[in-house]
Parts: sequence; C-alpha cells; structure tokens
Amino acid sequence: MKGLLLGGVEAGGTKMVCAVANELGVVLDEVRFPTASSEETLLRVKDYFEQAQMEYGELGAIGYATFGPAVVTQGEPNYGTILPTPKPGWQGVDVLGFLSQSFSDVGLAFDTDVNAAAIGEGFAGAGRGMKNFIYITVGTGIGGGVIIDGKPLHAKPHAEIGHMLVPVIDDYKGCCPFHGACLEGLASGSAIGQRWGIPAQELSPDHEAWDLEAEYLSMMVINLVACFAPERIILGGGVMEQDFLLTKVREAYYLKTGGYWPHDDSLLVSPEMGNQAGITGALVMANEVLAF
Amino acid sequence: MKGLLLGGVEAGGTKMVCAVANELGVVLDEVRFPTASSEETLLRVKDYFEQAQMEYGELGAIGYATFGPAVVTQGEPNYGTILPTPKPGWQGVDVLGFLSQSFSDVGLAFDTDVNAAAIGEGFAGAGRGMKNFIYITVGTGIGGGVIIDGKPLHAKPHAEIGHMLVPVIDDYKGCCPFHGACLEGLASGSAIGQRWGIPAQELSPDHEAWDLEAEYLSMMVINLVACFAPERIILGGGVMEQDFLLTKVREAYYLKTGGYWPHDDSLLVSPEMGNQAGITGALVMANEVLAF
Repeated sequence: MKGLLLGGVEAGGTKMVCAVANELGVVLDEVRFPTASSEETLLRVKDYFEQAQMEYGELGAIGYATFGPAVVTQGEPNYGTILPTPKPGWQGVDVLGFLSQSFSDVGLAFDTDVNAAAIGEGFAGAGRGMKNFIYITVGTGIGGGVIIDGKPLHAKPHAEIGHMLVPVIDDYKGCCPFHGACLEGLASGSAIGQRWGIPAQELSPDHEAWDLEAEYLSMMVINLVACFAPERIILGGGVMEQDFLLTKVREAYYLKTGGYWPHDDSLLVSPEMGNQAGITGALVMANEVLAF
Repeated sequence: MKGLLLGGVEAGGTKMVCAVANELGVVLDEVRFPTASSEETLLRVKDYFEQAQMEYGELGAIGYATFGPAVVTQGEPNYGTILPTPKPGWQGVDVLGFLSQSFSDVGLAFDTDVNAAAIGEGFAGAGRGMKNFIYITVGTGIGGGVIIDGKPLHAKPHAEIGHMLVPVIDDYKGCCPFHGACLEGLASGSAIGQRWGIPAQELSPDHEAWDLEAEYLSMMVINLVACFAPERIILGGGVMEQDFLLTKVREAYYLKTGGYWPHDDSLLVSPEMGNQAGITGALVMANEVLAF
C-alpha cells in the first residue's frame, strides 16, 4: 500500500508556512506566504494541499498549528476555532471545520503554534528525549508551548505564558493592551522598542536594555521552574537571536535562585530547529493522527 | 480471595497522618501524631502498619505523601528520597527504601503532600471530574499540587509554586529564607504575621492585611492561569480558612485580568475535603498501585 502524505500548516501572526512530507517524514515541499484575512488565507491553504495531492499523492492527515488564542482541546464543543483576537477577520473562525469540509477523508490535528514549535524541538531539536520541557518565543510578543509527560498541555484552553506577572523593576509602564506591565508588556520585542525608542534589533550589545531584558526573562524562568519543574526551557524567538542574551539570562537566573535550584546550563538553551520548529511540529501532529 | 488493605501516610511538616482502608476505600482506622526525627517518625509509621495488619488483615499497598522537596518521579535513581530541607534529620532520607525493607510484599507509591491533597480533592472533593486543576495551600508556607490530564505533575522533581515571583506592592521585604520576597515570602501565613506583627489568625476581618493578601494571591492566580489554563484552582490551607478571603481573591483577580480571561466563580473555590484531602489522596495512590 502506498504511504499517505503528511500535511503541515504553521499559521503565524504575520506568516503562513505550509508543507507536505512523505510517510517517512521527509519534507517534499514547503511554501511561505503572508497571513491575510481568514477567507483569503484558508483558501490559499486549501489550494496548496489540493495542488500537493495532484503532485505528490494522497494526503493522510494535516496538522494545523495556529496563533492563539484558540480552542485546542479535543472534545470541547468549539474545538478548532479561533478565540477573541485583535487579528482582523479571524475571531471565531472555525479552522478545523473549514479543513474537514475541504478534505473530507483526511485526519486533522489542531494546536497552538507554540505547542507545535515545542513538539518540533522535541522531535528533532533541543527537547529530544525529554518528557517535560517548555519552548518559549520572545518576539513581538511572548508565548510558550508546554510539553508534560511527552504531550502538549491542553487545558482551558491553553497556557498564555506571556501574560504572567513578574516584579516590575523599571519605570516603563508596559505595552500589553490587556494587562499593561505583564511579562509580555515588559519584555517582548515590542516592549523593548517602546521603552528605549529604538527597535530591539538595533540596540547595541552593550546597551543597558539587555541587562534589564535578562532580568525580566530570568524572572519568567523562575516562575516556569516553580510551576513546572521542567527538564529544559528552550528560549527562542527574534529577541533571543541576540546570541549574548542567553548567557545573561542564565546568569540572572542563577543569581536569583541562589542555591535553591541547581545551577545547570542544560536547563536554559537555544532552539536547534531555527524557523523549522513549528512546521516540523505540525507534520509530527499529522503523523500522530495517522498513527491512531 | 480476601481484599487487600490500602495504607496511607500524609507526612506533613509538623503532623503525620496514617490510615488504613479496605478494598472499597472505606477508612478502617486513622491516627495522627507529631512529625519528629526521621528515625523516630518512620519507626512509628512501621509500627502502625504492623499493628493494622494484625488487626485488619494483609496490606496490599501504601501511598506515602511527603512534605517537599522530594524525588517523586518514578525511574529517577533516588526516587523516594527527601531532598535538601531545613527539617532536621530528614535530608537525604530514603523513605521508600525504608518502607520497602519493612513491608517487602507491599506495593508503594510516593508523592508530595500537596499532590496527594490534589488527588484527594480530585477523587472526592472540589476537583471531581476535572482533568486539569490545581490545589493550593496557603499556610505557614505556600505550596501547590498540580493535576494535568488527570495525573499529578512529576517533573524535575516537582512544582514549587510557593517560590514563584510576583510584583511586590508593599514595603515588606519578604520572609523566604531562599528568595526573600517570592510569593511564599510575601503571602504565606508566616509573612502575614511578620509583616503586621500579629499572627494572621488574630487579624480582624476588616484589617487591611486581607486586601493586601488578596492582591498577592490574585497575582498567583494570574500566573497559574497563564501557565496551566486550569479548569479550577482550589485554595486551601490555614490562611484561606478566613472565609471572606476567597471572595476578595476572586474580586482582585477579576480586576487584574480585565476582559482577557473570563470571570467565572467556578475557577476559584474552597476545598471540600477539609483536613482529609491529603490522607485520602495517599489512599488513592495506594489503590492505583494495586490496580496495576
């Protein structure tokens, strides 16, 4: 019997990635295009997979990884829909419903983009072989995907790690439209840019902004260790691409924890999958649907 | 075939509870005694179960719920031992090793006291029917047991929710010997007593202490919702026995979250099992060992 294709979608806030892989997980094709309105974007996704089926064969399953918030818990009445979001034209959209109407015999999986990135890093990156770890992205916003006992955390509806509260240690009021000075409001790329009046990526490595950023991110790490006791926290996203920042976060974390938690450089690491973590995770999700 | 007895131990910082139940879960006997040195205390546990076997029949399994920190993850090399603790004479003690030498044909389960309380509330209390919930105790210290997908969270080694960081909104420096102004250092019963110079249970209900306490606990709730998206958070422990406090925490949480998370009184509730949650959880742990 011919193996069925795996499809993956990573639906980011600004960019879509679609890919197909064969039954061995080898990626056969991948495209990227900007995220537009839900109608336009989902039609483009549908077109992509229809073309891919003509070219490569029959699709077995699609894993769809979405920006949040979204209902990612199977069995919930609105499983597969997008929750209230400032993103125009996406609120309430039934993504899974659209996909199941478009591809009637194809298995479907649905999760957050950050959970998918965590799944991807767990499959072939910095979370390999670990049962309890967290993937954090520090970019325009801050988000996290949580793997517990080998599975992504799906609750009511999913973690929103960026919106935790941490001690405020500077005068900046924070930029989160919901909470002002939550972690995302204090330490996202948007917050760095607004606080210093310069885009984060243009700040020089010796700017005091980075010590402050490391302080805030080390508080996030303390809270993640206190809540989850993870084996590893993978720190990704555009802000973390400043390669001196990881070391600063580790040092700030060690200072704060004192002797209470061990000083172990394997706790805080960089991603290993670059910008392929999310789409890889989406393909893994599709593969898990087929395996059932 | 005669049903085997279930044994349970709740090893608290100041008080031990030991119980036996029949195969239906009916508690046949329960004793409480002060926690002393590890040698004295564990011998007393052993004596209790030897007597219970003579009186009620053969033990099938013992569930042991311990104060933390401890290694509660099966498969870890030192599974069942107590980690560094200020409690004299307990650090490094191999509790499971002692029990397995004392009761060679008896199944054993080992977890934290707060995970056991969460298991107990999930079995017959405020967590019934829920897959993702958290039990918090606000007493001398602050601790939490986390249930995810129906199972207690065991990681590296376990959550230490009391040591999360939250914004500091008063001048008190905090009483945590490790972190000063972490959540436990700011909002435990010890912190309340030290901040106001009066034991928490003697402060009148209209004392400003309680509004401040509700502020800090609502920040903890925000962080737990951001990290776990739980169906429910059960707020227990001596400090929460002030029955007006739960409402104050809810109100402070609703104010902070704005419209971002729903206002739902079923999220924050009181325990339903009183001081029986932990020992009930220990007996449930024993029962699960027998079921395998």
